[in-house]
Amino acid sequence: MPDTLPDTLPADSVGIVTSRRVAIERPLALACGVVLDSHQLEVECYGQLNRRGDNAILICHALSGHHHAAGYHRGDSRPGWWEHYIGPGKPIDTERFYVVCPTNIGSCFGSTGPLTENPATGQPWAAEFPPLRARDWVNSQRLLMDELGVSRWAAVVGGSLGGMQAMRWSLEYPELLDHCVVIASAMKLSAQNIAFNEIARRAIKSDPDFYDGQYAQHNTSPQRGLALARMIGHVTYLSDELMGQKFGRELRLGDFATGSASPVQFEIESYLNHQGDKFSGAFDANSYLLITKMLDYFDLARAYDNDAVAAFRRARCGFQVISFSSDWRFAPARSREIVQALVAAGRDVCYCEIESDQGHDAFLLPNRRYQEALGTYLARAAQAVEARP
Amino acid sequence: MPDTLPDTLPADSVGIVTSRRVAIERPLALACGVVLDSHQLEVECYGQLNRRGDNAILICHALSGHHHAAGYHRGDSRPGWWEHYIGPGKPIDTERFYVVCPTNIGSCFGSTGPLTENPATGQPWAAEFPPLRARDWVNSQRLLMDELGVSRWAAVVGGSLGGMQAMRWSLEYPELLDHCVVIASAMKLSAQNIAFNEIARRAIKSDPDFYDGQYAQHNTSPQRGLALARMIGHVTYLSDELMGQKFGRELRLGDFATGSASPVQFEIESYLNHQGDKFSGAFDANSYLLITKMLDYFDLARAYDNDAVAAFRRARCGFQVISFSSDWRFAPARSREIVQALVAAGRDVCYCEIESDQGHDAFLLPNRRYQEALGTYLARAAQAVEARP
Repeated sequence: MPDTLPDTLPADSVGIVTSRRVAIERPLALACGVVLDSHQLEVECYGQLNRRGDNAILICHALSGHHHAAGYHRGDSRPGWWEHYIGPGKPIDTERFYVVCPTNIGSCFGSTGPLTENPATGQPWAAEFPPLRARDWVNSQRLLMDELGVSRWAAVVGGSLGGMQAMRWSLEYPELLDHCVVIASAMKLSAQNIAFNEIARRAIKSDPDFYDGQYAQHNTSPQRGLALARMIGHVTYLSDELMGQKFGRELRLGDFATGSASPVQFEIESYLNHQGDKFSGAFDANSYLLITKMLDYFDLARAYDNDAVAAFRRARCGFQVISFSSDWRFAPARSREIVQALVAAGRDVCYCEIESDQGHDAFLLPNRRYQEALGTYLARAAQAVEARP
Repeated sequence: MPDTLPDTLPADSVGIVTSRRVAIERPLALACGVVLDSHQLEVECYGQLNRRGDNAILICHALSGHHHAAGYHRGDSRPGWWEHYIGPGKPIDTERFYVVCPTNIGSCFGSTGPLTENPATGQPWAAEFPPLRARDWVNSQRLLMDELGVSRWAAVVGGSLGGMQAMRWSLEYPELLDHCVVIASAMKLSAQNIAFNEIARRAIKSDPDFYDGQYAQHNTSPQRGLALARMIGHVTYLSDELMGQKFGRELRLGDFATGSASPVQFEIESYLNHQGDKFSGAFDANSYLLITKMLDYFDLARAYDNDAVAAFRRARCGFQVISFSSDWRFAPARSREIVQALVAAGRDVCYCEIESDQGHDAFLLPNRRYQEALGTYLARAAQAVEARP
């Protein structure tokens, strides 16, 4: 919740925020058949909920995201992961919307998952946490609505895996959202996407410190494997073009050395190794395995005889679909498939392909056209809420 | 050398072949400053060298290639890696050419490299083998010419890293080749290419069985890391389209399972894991590190003030450049850069972009247009040789 802002924080930030832990004491039936009698969600909320409880926006995070989407945690120099897009006067305008961002179950930032206690054993779930589907996240977020007094979402918004959740929301609870914003996403992963995820999982599982997921019992964690997994992901999130611009073929420590065991590195190598190491200290390997599997299994239309048009006929909300020209992990062609199915299903849809050289990462980064597109769409959503009697 | 063919071997195969080990007793000065007083190359040769010694074609292998390019080793059911393109009546026609394919130094199939003895220590070189550049392979191949009695190459031919060697040949020994065939290659790797190679290297080095490259002393090898490295490479050699066609999103062992620890896999996962495991039993990790570094460092024009046109002005041979439409590891755009530099340098060049959905792997696989393009070009090369007085 916003606190008094130190002078150094930017005026268009929600400022100092703290997360809250929401205990949900109602059962959550997972797609795999397991029922969680209760679960907890670590959540951040920005802005004020109106009396009708209908000016809320749900932010759906992606693979490695979490509840800290905007503002600053006390003492931190870096803000939340979507600070560019959430705040007063920003596209997701906290002066108009009540913005809700939970860490979803299965992840590792306070919500129920591999790191929290399995009530049946009194031990952390670790590798025994049940497999998850995107609809499990949606159903958990549905319960969260009631805890927060949200009556309907003015919009459900997400990028990448977050976009998959947003689409799933539009099918599972069509009456509970006005708008669905699907950014840099897809109705299902390609075989290549799955292949990269599988290599990442194998990197984790083949780390001798993995111990079949029971690494905590051995007071260790598969840091090497997780770092590799992140490096693989990271390369696929950047465009070849951007990597060329950012790193080129610059050498870090001089030129080709004489003799063996040269320490020379290209800048890109140094950067990637740093990214891998940083991530492996901050994320949980069992969560990474769970959530990449969720990504692989996501298939919007599977339950509709693989007919995406039939699926989207269930939806009632408006849609904005956004893609980025240099994104090869979730290419614009995947977004156009979504748009085509929405149009064929008679849905109201607005599509923007944003020029960007930032690859898949573009959905997290500043980009004027993207800000305008998202801001314009959500401003209309705000007007619709505010025009209600 | 061809032997009597069993009835079961195809008539257009060079048949049963055996490799020979060629001892080169002249010094080889490597780019890093180390001098190898002598070295050995494991070589296969197909066809007959003419009296002038000028009907020879040098086959340059890529990252994981070796001397066994065509025909069958006795008892093997699978032929050499370029069987589709080398043989009687094939594009690299063994009835007209004397075809030479060495395993290059630093690799792990009999030629001098990490697995062979370092004369200074009496022990295998292992991680102490000096770093290599593509020009070191070219200089070794130059010495091999003399051992085999080859006076000039009718063509130097290679795909991927093999194409880099072929281009280097055209600059280092311009008077010693008539034609240079550069397939699915590039004048230098992109930052993204380097990034994938670095992740592969890190997978190997972070395997606890790597022991700083001295794994043989510990009677082990970093199989897990090498398998991961191969899986990463493999995904980048295939096109997204082909993976979709070949594997789609088919599940291997049933559908999404109930409860935890699901054994369910997509077909692509099973395939990739198999490829990784197969490779890690057949290749040496130190060789993989050496040769990926060679790939990363290759930069055709670095010694020519980064001016590729100036570089190619040194060349005297004709060029054929071939790329494949779905190859994203060595994209057609990289081949067009080669062609543009060759044209600007006034060289004779023929360029073919072949339609293929096979990705980078296309250069190894059957493709009628590719066979025609290569065959037509090399038939002219043969005619030129045969027309000499």
